[in-house]
Amino acid sequence: MLSQKITIVGSGNWGSAIARIVGKTTVEHKEFDSKVLMWVYEEIINGRKLTEIINTEHENVKYLPGKKLPANVIAVPDLRAACESSDVLIFVIPHQFISNVCKQIAGHIKTGAHGVSLVKIREKPHSVLRNIINAQQQTKGLMNSKKGGIRLVSEEIHDILGIDVSVLMGANLAPEVANDDFCEATIGCKGSAETRSMLKKLFQTENFRINVVRDAHTVELCGALKNIVACAAGITDGLGYGDNTKAAVIRLGLMEITKFVEHFYPGSNLQTFFESCGIADLITTCYGGRNRKVCEAFVKTGKSIKELEISLLKGQSAQGPLTASEVNEMIKHYGMSAKFPLFAAVDEICNGAMQPAELINCLRDHPEHL
Amino acid sequence: MLSQKITIVGSGNWGSAIARIVGKTTVEHKEFDSKVLMWVYEEIINGRKLTEIINTEHENVKYLPGKKLPANVIAVPDLRAACESSDVLIFVIPHQFISNVCKQIAGHIKTGAHGVSLVKIREKPHSVLRNIINAQQQTKGLMNSKKGGIRLVSEEIHDILGIDVSVLMGANLAPEVANDDFCEATIGCKGSAETRSMLKKLFQTENFRINVVRDAHTVELCGALKNIVACAAGITDGLGYGDNTKAAVIRLGLMEITKFVEHFYPGSNLQTFFESCGIADLITTCYGGRNRKVCEAFVKTGKSIKELEISLLKGQSAQGPLTASEVNEMIKHYGMSAKFPLFAAVDEICNGAMQPAELINCLRDHPEHL
Repeated sequence: MLSQKITIVGSGNWGSAIARIVGKTTVEHKEFDSKVLMWVYEEIINGRKLTEIINTEHENVKYLPGKKLPANVIAVPDLRAACESSDVLIFVIPHQFISNVCKQIAGHIKTGAHGVSLVKIREKPHSVLRNIINAQQQTKGLMNSKKGGIRLVSEEIHDILGIDVSVLMGANLAPEVANDDFCEATIGCKGSAETRSMLKKLFQTENFRINVVRDAHTVELCGALKNIVACAAGITDGLGYGDNTKAAVIRLGLMEITKFVEHFYPGSNLQTFFESCGIADLITTCYGGRNRKVCEAFVKTGKSIKELEISLLKGQSAQGPLTASEVNEMIKHYGMSAKFPLFAAVDEICNGAMQPAELINCLRDHPEHL
Repeated sequence: MLSQKITIVGSGNWGSAIARIVGKTTVEHKEFDSKVLMWVYEEIINGRKLTEIINTEHENVKYLPGKKLPANVIAVPDLRAACESSDVLIFVIPHQFISNVCKQIAGHIKTGAHGVSLVKIREKPHSVLRNIINAQQQTKGLMNSKKGGIRLVSEEIHDILGIDVSVLMGANLAPEVANDDFCEATIGCKGSAETRSMLKKLFQTENFRINVVRDAHTVELCGALKNIVACAAGITDGLGYGDNTKAAVIRLGLMEITKFVEHFYPGSNLQTFFESCGIADLITTCYGGRNRKVCEAFVKTGKSIKELEISLLKGQSAQGPLTASEVNEMIKHYGMSAKFPLFAAVDEICNGAMQPAELINCLRDHPEHL
């Protein structure tokens, strides 16, 4: 594996933060071509093309202002031209664009290319899990199939492009990563030892520490399901409960995540939940994230989630209530509500069918306590 | 197992909160004698005996004022009289009194009695782990012994009284438990299924939810080691790092806890770290606890831990720096410093040998990232 060519598909806040890392590692390790291509959706900023600004001033003035990009990161406005010769395609665009972008490059990428999804689940109209329900509704009886109808972003990319896809997740928000703060990330990669080692070299810097694990699905699902738990934590905060009640709620939420993953992807490794994508991302989301904040305000003010998204999140959507709704639909469909009382309660509370104060009642006879 | 007699050995804040629970469950379940004895170290409060106040007004006015104790909880000032007929002895006294109390009742308890330690590691001059070092120093070469010289509170009770001892730990501070807030606890019990079932009935109420696991040592060790991680979290806060850096530090701390437990008690169950005694207690301690608070102030003010204990904790000791010191001594003794860089760094920083800003440097090459 010599001189692997790298393309970053996306150039938003998170994509630009990652470009700062990959631009550095590809220079440091000789197995990479140090010229990194970054596909940039062309925009005109103050009369100049964004790609031109990036390629001359080495700064994404729109999405990551104030932070220099390495000079070896080259902005390319043409999607196919950016991807066609590369060995590693790093997808870091909002979820709703994944399908369209993949279809544009399908048939125009290198045989044996490897995909890496860094797609975070936020600010998008429908989450990954919406696909699960669609799949279920189209194919009733999937419950007994191995995967139970789940379709993840990595699978979406794989299905369209026919390439192996790894994922990178964890407690690492773009601003802190761009600031070179010490953070960790988890890469889920089912590939060979050689691929795992290559990915670690590609993403690990002094301040961005990588663990590579094999059960990629666990890594990816943790990222979606944590937001439901953060809603429960926010409801607990809104109700004025203390630290220990909140800790119990977070723990029970984590247990539901592990059970959900195990049901739909049997054989997940318990150790993976101890990685950055698991407990670390869950903790930050339950203490600092927007889902927590919105749900706390939901309880305290009685305003709707929609109203609060406008007033508290500047119109961005809180992913947790959406994901809770999709998961609740799914567990009802499979008759599994009793196994996931926290997931179900968060949906019922956010959609107004249940009083927030009922949350704790739903947890008293949690299957974890039986 | 009919009509088990219960004694609570201790009547402080935590003991009184537990008396409210056990007083209730022993009435609800017919396998218990509903008369619960509580050993109370006699004190004179406003000219009256504390035992007399408890037995007439059903309130521990000194240690849990404002909360009623069930009328079936009977305060007994004589230690032997309180313990001699009981089947279950619940130890809930400060650690420094354990040895003395056990010696007083040794030879005067029922054959086959079962002990439960609820001893929390705080406000005491020397922690559990001090015993580890002493044991090591007395018996060099213990490294290769199965237990590595560790001596826990439960083992101390067992060794003096010759009875089986379970432990109850978790994210459950006395004020929240006494307030009937929803909390969880973990019981570590190596005994029979019958004993485990009995203990669950004895401690579980609607708002105090119990899981019983077998590896009692893990349960007990988590309670001591979490305080070191909370110090690291506090140092991170003091340095002004963001949520993701803090999450990484907490996660790496948890990994060191699992490795430490596994080294000294091989065969621990990974699942136990997901219990209340594990992640839940760790989270509350790292976000709300006194060790976090003192270490944050230590970094921000430059004052010594001792000064801060006086000004911030009203003279109570922060257990984390003490435990870190003992653990660091131990891992140095065994040549294992490289495996526990966070534990070692917390000690070095708290004792002034290292600058707080060095913490992150110590974590970059953490064995978890290799």
